[in-house]
Amino acid sequence: MPLLVMKFGGTSVANIDRIRRAAKRVGVEVAKGYDVIVIVSAMAGRTNELVEWVEDISPLYDAREYDAVVSSGEVVTAGLMALTLQEMDVPARSWQGWQVPVLTTSAHSAARIDEIPTDNINAKFGEGMRVAVVAGFQGLSPEGRITTLGRGGSDTTAVAFAAAFGAERCDIYTDVDGVYTTDPRITDKARKLDRIAFEEMLELASLGAKVLQTRSVELAMRYNVKLRVLSSFEEQSDDAGTLVCAEEEIVESNVVNGIAYSRDEAKMTLISVADRPGIAAAIFMPLSEAGVNVDMIVQNISEEGRTDMTFSCPTNQVKRAEQALQEAKARGEINFHDLVADTNVAKVSAVGIGMRSQSGVAAQMFKTLSDEGINIKVIATSEIKISVLIDRKYMELAVQALHDAFELDKAA
Amino acid sequence: MPLLVMKFGGTSVANIDRIRRAAKRVGVEVAKGYDVIVIVSAMAGRTNELVEWVEDISPLYDAREYDAVVSSGEVVTAGLMALTLQEMDVPARSWQGWQVPVLTTSAHSAARIDEIPTDNINAKFGEGMRVAVVAGFQGLSPEGRITTLGRGGSDTTAVAFAAAFGAERCDIYTDVDGVYTTDPRITDKARKLDRIAFEEMLELASLGAKVLQTRSVELAMRYNVKLRVLSSFEEQSDDAGTLVCAEEEIVESNVVNGIAYSRDEAKMTLISVADRPGIAAAIFMPLSEAGVNVDMIVQNISEEGRTDMTFSCPTNQVKRAEQALQEAKARGEINFHDLVADTNVAKVSAVGIGMRSQSGVAAQMFKTLSDEGINIKVIATSEIKISVLIDRKYMELAVQALHDAFELDKAA
Repeated sequence: MPLLVMKFGGTSVANIDRIRRAAKRVGVEVAKGYDVIVIVSAMAGRTNELVEWVEDISPLYDAREYDAVVSSGEVVTAGLMALTLQEMDVPARSWQGWQVPVLTTSAHSAARIDEIPTDNINAKFGEGMRVAVVAGFQGLSPEGRITTLGRGGSDTTAVAFAAAFGAERCDIYTDVDGVYTTDPRITDKARKLDRIAFEEMLELASLGAKVLQTRSVELAMRYNVKLRVLSSFEEQSDDAGTLVCAEEEIVESNVVNGIAYSRDEAKMTLISVADRPGIAAAIFMPLSEAGVNVDMIVQNISEEGRTDMTFSCPTNQVKRAEQALQEAKARGEINFHDLVADTNVAKVSAVGIGMRSQSGVAAQMFKTLSDEGINIKVIATSEIKISVLIDRKYMELAVQALHDAFELDKAA
Repeated sequence: MPLLVMKFGGTSVANIDRIRRAAKRVGVEVAKGYDVIVIVSAMAGRTNELVEWVEDISPLYDAREYDAVVSSGEVVTAGLMALTLQEMDVPARSWQGWQVPVLTTSAHSAARIDEIPTDNINAKFGEGMRVAVVAGFQGLSPEGRITTLGRGGSDTTAVAFAAAFGAERCDIYTDVDGVYTTDPRITDKARKLDRIAFEEMLELASLGAKVLQTRSVELAMRYNVKLRVLSSFEEQSDDAGTLVCAEEEIVESNVVNGIAYSRDEAKMTLISVADRPGIAAAIFMPLSEAGVNVDMIVQNISEEGRTDMTFSCPTNQVKRAEQALQEAKARGEINFHDLVADTNVAKVSAVGIGMRSQSGVAAQMFKTLSDEGINIKVIATSEIKISVLIDRKYMELAVQALHDAFELDKAA
């Protein structure tokens, strides 16, 4: 029988009524003739509660115990979902990560899936079971301990199951009805996309769009798993939501398909760094070792052997970055006059696979911002993305202006 | 190193502060030189919440899914306890039932422990770990699914671990400071016992004293595990609480050591049953098949080939019992004029190993009740116990009068 993977996020299973509604959606697909693997998150709020307990006990917690505790929320939902399906006369049973088993690396709290043997679940499908409900977000380490895949990891679980079982599609049910050209809370001109390319989704996800976990999109791209994002709160047609798919499956596309933003970016500048070969490595190695996720990097033109080096990193890593750089200075590895952190910035990005073939996108973006009187502090580009760092107070304005300029309210 | 098992019930781990307090108690034993296996219940209220969700979804739930859901509470506490101990610099880690593994039968929701292999945990003790924190109440079926041992099953887990690992003692930390001669809420003359024999504890547990789960006492008796019941809310000395132990270890004992009561007993009478050989079997087989737990049984003197048959069962099984008996009547297996259920009764029992050697206990019990004007409806006796069914409204009075009559406020 053809197979679907359906994933329900925390808000879609937040209480018994919502679990019933989700189970009905599963029942519709079963009635169409699909065998279904359902991946569930913890009921909304549960994981946060567990995380708070752990952090209350121990700020520097043992990640193995953290994983054992926080993975319990998904286990509860999986059992409740299986019971709900059984009550609807749909043959179903639940699996915890270790029962499948979802084999992962030992990197607790950020484990990667190595392998998902399909024989246990397929044997049950062979015996007439129609739905396997699997607790998302979790797996089993080579040492036999429970691992988790990091926050939002249930998306990754879903895509990995779709790849392992050769599912026809992986439907991600969430509290939004698809992927939008930008956040509808910022402009009511935001338009739902029917299709988006993996590469675009990947950029949007890593740029702050919270619809899908970045890693799940990477995985879907690698194994060419058709991903559909749709709402569990609306009646669904067969073409509801947004399909995330390979570029070849998208016939028409705008040059720019999305405007993303992030408030959590800070700008840090090392003023008057003694410039010499290898200075970039001397600066960014200590940051990397301190676990600082550096995003954009700009080096100003060097004058008289000294230069300014600017980079961006998440706001909550500023302290860590400052400490790492001051320590590197104390060790004599780098030399700078001053270190300035600016946390009143935001990152705004334009994303689109059309940029590959069309020039002038960056110029139009800079002109649009300039027309609004918005100063650009840092620029970074990739093949299908242009990101700028601007004053945070202009963020909404910039998103609205760019959305208009690239006519994202109109379909291609 | 000598080994202790310490079990903490739901109220003793109800929140992070209480988990810290319990961990401190564990730390005291570790400082004395003990390796410790800690068995934890779910945080108070958690299991009830999970059970309610399951019952909301499906009144006739799949016990396998029920077990998967309700066992999650203990998993959370085990991880939190391990983290708390680590934070106190006590080397500790958590185990879920399936990780030990606690091997059980497949009787979901009422599984029995078959075996607890000790090698995994002992290997970690060998590597310097001082505390193994194990999620109580749960195990692994031969089919690889999670089982639970029934409500209160963490007591049984604790005793089974004490037996398997040859622990010096099994300390059960709870919200009362020991086993009392009767419920202190009924008479302030109730006295904490320093020691009580397994057999007495077993009778008291099955008669409604809620301190220990019956099965855990059976198991302790079979493997001669020294059980200590004590409070997690008081500073503890080495001889705190009540030691449940073999009869030989008790030097002095009163004839009667405890007065137990139960409000949850109903009296059922089959009026004018056609008496013939095998009639008792014909009545009680269908009840047994319907899962009715029959306790006391009395058959009146037969007149003209007919008799009255009276038995007691838990109040919430009355409907089931009536249905089973009416169906047996409809099938022609038994014949009776009427079936009368009386749910306004209570069971009061006197328990003591001294009864074995001393006669006249029953007579004194009946006289005491008679002096108070309390009518006895049904009597049942065992070697160390006398139980009577009386009107519920006299229950407190009966307990107080018997406690006085047998001088339970005075130590032997």
